[in-house]
Amino acid sequence: MKKKMLTKNAFYAQSGGVTAVINASACGVIETAKKHKTKIAKVYAGKNGILGALSENLIDTSLESDKEIAALLYTPGGAFGSARYKLKGFEENQREYQRLIKVFKAHNIGYFFYNGGGDSMDTALKVSQMGEKMNFPIISIGIPKTVDNDIAVTDSCPGFGSVAKYIAVSTHEASLDVLSMAETSTKVFILEVMGRHAGWIAAASGLIAKKQNDPPHMILFPEVPFDQKDFLSHVKKNVQRNGFCVIVASEGARYKNGKFLADAGTKDSFGHKQLGGVAPVLAQTIKKELGYKFHYAIADYLQRSARHLASQTDLDQAYAVGEAAVEMAIDGKKSLMITIQRLSDSPYKWSIGSVDLSKVANNEKKMPKSFIKKSGYGITNSCRKYLAPLIEGEAYPNYENGLPRYTTLKNNLVPKRLKTKFVV
Amino acid sequence: MKKKMLTKNAFYAQSGGVTAVINASACGVIETAKKHKTKIAKVYAGKNGILGALSENLIDTSLESDKEIAALLYTPGGAFGSARYKLKGFEENQREYQRLIKVFKAHNIGYFFYNGGGDSMDTALKVSQMGEKMNFPIISIGIPKTVDNDIAVTDSCPGFGSVAKYIAVSTHEASLDVLSMAETSTKVFILEVMGRHAGWIAAASGLIAKKQNDPPHMILFPEVPFDQKDFLSHVKKNVQRNGFCVIVASEGARYKNGKFLADAGTKDSFGHKQLGGVAPVLAQTIKKELGYKFHYAIADYLQRSARHLASQTDLDQAYAVGEAAVEMAIDGKKSLMITIQRLSDSPYKWSIGSVDLSKVANNEKKMPKSFIKKSGYGITNSCRKYLAPLIEGEAYPNYENGLPRYTTLKNNLVPKRLKTKFVV
Repeated sequence: MKKKMLTKNAFYAQSGGVTAVINASACGVIETAKKHKTKIAKVYAGKNGILGALSENLIDTSLESDKEIAALLYTPGGAFGSARYKLKGFEENQREYQRLIKVFKAHNIGYFFYNGGGDSMDTALKVSQMGEKMNFPIISIGIPKTVDNDIAVTDSCPGFGSVAKYIAVSTHEASLDVLSMAETSTKVFILEVMGRHAGWIAAASGLIAKKQNDPPHMILFPEVPFDQKDFLSHVKKNVQRNGFCVIVASEGARYKNGKFLADAGTKDSFGHKQLGGVAPVLAQTIKKELGYKFHYAIADYLQRSARHLASQTDLDQAYAVGEAAVEMAIDGKKSLMITIQRLSDSPYKWSIGSVDLSKVANNEKKMPKSFIKKSGYGITNSCRKYLAPLIEGEAYPNYENGLPRYTTLKNNLVPKRLKTKFVV
Repeated sequence: MKKKMLTKNAFYAQSGGVTAVINASACGVIETAKKHKTKIAKVYAGKNGILGALSENLIDTSLESDKEIAALLYTPGGAFGSARYKLKGFEENQREYQRLIKVFKAHNIGYFFYNGGGDSMDTALKVSQMGEKMNFPIISIGIPKTVDNDIAVTDSCPGFGSVAKYIAVSTHEASLDVLSMAETSTKVFILEVMGRHAGWIAAASGLIAKKQNDPPHMILFPEVPFDQKDFLSHVKKNVQRNGFCVIVASEGARYKNGKFLADAGTKDSFGHKQLGGVAPVLAQTIKKELGYKFHYAIADYLQRSARHLASQTDLDQAYAVGEAAVEMAIDGKKSLMITIQRLSDSPYKWSIGSVDLSKVANNEKKMPKSFIKKSGYGITNSCRKYLAPLIEGEAYPNYENGLPRYTTLKNNLVPKRLKTKFVV
């Protein structure tokens, strides 16, 4: 059979929330595959992630110039589109996995590189299993990515170091602002950051404190149940002592009963439940109980897309996991997720490792207790040691006319080969 | 009289909301004064702005090292503290002006450098007039500063170029994020920016659009009355055409009757009126009327303190206005505000000028009609031409361990000489 002789193509897809450096992983995959043309013919990227595979919308990355592919290193967001779409379990939805294998067969795809978080590793595992079952073995490799830093086993997650740097720097800058105005204006400043289940991003703000009573004065972690009375007494103490209080709050901060502060029952003028953030709830509580003037910022997407302030460490690791995924795949390894292994804290040394997909799928890494101060509002020295190297180094994009030169790819689609359409 | 022979000291104070580069103006004042020691003995900075003069809390800047003063170029916030405090008119409150002159006399202060916005120029003018009246003439010079870009006469205001750059870059980055997720997730992203009376900051986001239908798809200016029906129809059109819609909203966006959107009557669970931003109000309206999934960010203090992304043009101008203030003062000029004069758009050329304080005091510069598109949701080419040079150049701070090396001065106070205390 002639078809079997053909060099296999690879499929690459971005999954879930994007980051400032997820395109660096794409760049690592594409550039490395190009070095091994006898093993991997072309890299097809899924348009809007896994949906691109299901709907047979495959982007031919070989049609992009080397220069544009290199520019992915400097461009935030997901260059091929990502998707919030989780494939269901085998029993519930075999047809999705069967469709994937059908598309892969039709386009001679022998490699599946899935760039995402814990949920995505579950998908990568299932694709691998389904390939075996359908007698079209596919080498499936997971490439870790998440700003939340909550993927199991890997020491750090590409995407996190950059958001950590952004939040640390932003907290520092806003704190200097508030400090200089506190005498006659804002006394309490709240910065709401991402992190619904784990407080890693909020924790990063703690890196700016050099000595006692330096901002941020309080950090709220999802891992520590929120106690309003205790919280307010700490806010008051900080304002009395420092003249102001800077609070960095995880969006996932919650009460002891698990209820999110952001769901505190705020209603709009129509009486509808308001999908508010945690910052306005905290601000209102402080205003009502302590009377302090407040301001708050909600960083939202700005934090995870802030490529202009990316961490060089993070960028290096994002590229390296993409590169390693291809190298391991052509070495015949499969059903793995690439990991970052920490060899030493200071000087920071790391290497690339791997772990069986089954060990990371749907597994979440929260902040260990030893990383959170006893008060519940700060980070410990062990946490600082862990976080510090991840924000090291500045990896600035090039600028033109005062703005970063972010790239937009052509994203040309591969002609479809299947007659059947697939409705998601 | 021996005292009259003494070289006069200078008083410098920061006023109102601080910026990413207000300390560069302080640096310009202090470094330039040092070059003219026969004319200006020392520069005393007001601790917390004008309050420092009223309460005789004067910071002796000569006790800081040259290196630390130079580091002010790279440090956001107000290094000596600023204040939201406006002196009242003569008739209402002569005692404040009299107190100022008394403190200036006691400390042999012959120069008054006031670094602030339009309101502050009024104060600078009054101080000058009061000095004459009390037979202690003082050379009063205004140094412009505001992120709002709303001071009259000067072509641009130091502080604005940097926030403009930050908002343009952040909008670009968040737009790339939303673009890549829109298929399965957020359809509408709203970025709330500063600007209660003038839309200059929001306008800067328009610089990222290279071609039609590029984000930001809609900009809301305080200058354009908000029409909900028209707004929603534009949002819908954008989502249908582009797959997503990015909106940059001035905090001061308002209805035809002048009511702020941010005061839209939202109430918290206790039934109290909520001091919300404009972003949540827009988001809720879109969700209710069009059903789109939304996200919003509120940049708040992050935007005006973002020294890590300052504009080199802005930094140069911030330093230059401080430098020029001292040079004009020792030339015997007084009752002036320093201005930036634009000589040409492209290549951008500018020079330093000055204007009588009476012509800028309490005068506000809004966006001209010719800068806003007919639709009311975008900027024109004239506006682009005006804004583009102000965000040019990157003026990065130095980093250490992944964080900017922002300075903290010693801020030692000059011993008090007056027996009377002053209660503000």
